[in-house]
Amino acid sequence: MVQPRVTITSIAREAGVSVSTVSKVLNGRADVAAGTRSRVEELLDKHAYPRAGRRGADPAGLVDLVFGELDSPWAVEIIRGAEEVARAAGLGTVVSAIHTGIAGAGAADGGEPARQWLDNLVRRRSEGVVLVLEELAPGQLARLEALDVPYVVIDPRGEPDPRIPSIGAANWAGGMAATRHLAELGHRRIAIISGPAGLLCSRARLDGHRGALESAGLPADPDLVRYGDFHHESGYVQAGLLLDLPDPPTAIFAGSDQQAYGACEAARERGLRIPQDLSIVGFDDLSVSRWFSPPLTTVRQPLAEMGALAARMLLRMARGETLETRRVELATELVVRESTAPPP
Amino acid sequence: MVQPRVTITSIAREAGVSVSTVSKVLNGRADVAAGTRSRVEELLDKHAYPRAGRRGADPAGLVDLVFGELDSPWAVEIIRGAEEVARAAGLGTVVSAIHTGIAGAGAADGGEPARQWLDNLVRRRSEGVVLVLEELAPGQLARLEALDVPYVVIDPRGEPDPRIPSIGAANWAGGMAATRHLAELGHRRIAIISGPAGLLCSRARLDGHRGALESAGLPADPDLVRYGDFHHESGYVQAGLLLDLPDPPTAIFAGSDQQAYGACEAARERGLRIPQDLSIVGFDDLSVSRWFSPPLTTVRQPLAEMGALAARMLLRMARGETLETRRVELATELVVRESTAPPP
Repeated sequence: MVQPRVTITSIAREAGVSVSTVSKVLNGRADVAAGTRSRVEELLDKHAYPRAGRRGADPAGLVDLVFGELDSPWAVEIIRGAEEVARAAGLGTVVSAIHTGIAGAGAADGGEPARQWLDNLVRRRSEGVVLVLEELAPGQLARLEALDVPYVVIDPRGEPDPRIPSIGAANWAGGMAATRHLAELGHRRIAIISGPAGLLCSRARLDGHRGALESAGLPADPDLVRYGDFHHESGYVQAGLLLDLPDPPTAIFAGSDQQAYGACEAARERGLRIPQDLSIVGFDDLSVSRWFSPPLTTVRQPLAEMGALAARMLLRMARGETLETRRVELATELVVRESTAPPP
Repeated sequence: MVQPRVTITSIAREAGVSVSTVSKVLNGRADVAAGTRSRVEELLDKHAYPRAGRRGADPAGLVDLVFGELDSPWAVEIIRGAEEVARAAGLGTVVSAIHTGIAGAGAADGGEPARQWLDNLVRRRSEGVVLVLEELAPGQLARLEALDVPYVVIDPRGEPDPRIPSIGAANWAGGMAATRHLAELGHRRIAIISGPAGLLCSRARLDGHRGALESAGLPADPDLVRYGDFHHESGYVQAGLLLDLPDPPTAIFAGSDQQAYGACEAARERGLRIPQDLSIVGFDDLSVSRWFSPPLTTVRQPLAEMGALAARMLLRMARGETLETRRVELATELVVRESTAPPP
């Protein structure tokens, strides 16, 4: 099954030209210098690269973008960034959901959707794979590595394997910025609803929160630390528990935008106005957060940029270039809108 | 350039088996009956279909899903539906954004991103294309038709071309359900913020609204009919104008969920509580609308089902089957949450 792979990027590397130049030659475009064209044509012939206009298959020119679930508004932001880079390089972006959380729980090969995706991938001329916040089951990872397709992970769940290139956001700095903002507004009882304790990104945000409390000379009250699963419902439930404490917080750093939406609803049901009675900060800056009512103060993760960078790293790896580093963290940024104010 | 296309679906049609059966044979899977396998193998050889494990290209097995912009949370819902059907049939889903609204405005060939996408498509073995709420420029449409790739349109902007298969939602019925719900709660001054007047889907929603007013014996006050562009900002601006009228409405049918979010914010800025002082109904049921505060009453468009149906129609067309109808409208459904109540 495994054989030497001839791809657009391997041709480009050998010819010493860009992927989009090879793509232009394949498309018969006029804007390629004659010398370059003939060098690329020779290599295409040498490697028996299948050509449009000849009998047989057209080369696909693809990158794969794989999500656990396509159920979150942030997926579309990552797709937008990766698609832009891939399309400009002459590549299509194949989006898949492999439902590891449901069907694949515990299965060594990851369940039927993941198996279907890998079966399909075997037949594709994919230049590389971006895995988004997802760990493949061990059997899948072995199959992927046997195919010799480069891959990059966005926001890995745990400690990133140092051999695997990965992209994250500066979660610790973002957590610190969120809580520092609340402390500077004068809040002294600041709660956090963290994401799952087992995820690296949530642990980093929680540590940033603690660091900001300490810098501001505020005590770390264990009653004010809660854990959710990044989704709306857990923000709603945990914020309700916080607001029903005998000495409730005046501000909540909600750990994700979706948890922040849930916290807002828990406040509304208790007759609390945001930000007059309670301040709330999210994390992500989903496009819908600026449309929330009130518009949500949050920590921006550059999701589209993370998708774009993942695609760029893949193209470089497929060309055989050496990456300066296997782990890149993009900066996060506090975006102050209208869900935060001084305490009542 | 144009040549007889041998695809997974054309092989499946000729063999009288499903696309996923051909896919299994290609993948060397064991769960195919021996007679079926040999019939498929013969056809693959007869048409010189390129095979994994042989020298040369792997067949790609793709459907294309094309958006104008990847900037809306509803895109991910359509992707989810189409991807599920395509993956199960052994196909990858290539997602592209062609930015017709910006770069391509007015250009006969639709601008650089659209050109890149079509260049890339030429090299791909795509079984079909789903165009989402987007009209290709005339030059692009001619190129697409010359490639002889089947295509389906989701929610066309204007009168659908009867020759092109298209999928929409029951917009008129949805508009009627939204306004009837408000009338039944006792509202008598019910405003609408429609989408753009030129889009078929907005005109249908507006007509449904008018029909419901008439059925309820309520006058159609032209002051209470406004037009937006489906995005947040126009909902915010138009709702502000409505709320500042000498005799403002007590309820707004906002035409889209994003316009509803904007209307909520305009109300909040004026100190109006939702639903106690003002009722608001959206249209779409984006996943974030159930997380809104208050959770939004809206008309559900089955976006994932529309994506799934588009993929199924493409697979049938690619197999040469005749569609019963070239225009399908899926049902919409009123989802009553907490943004609507009797008038104050």
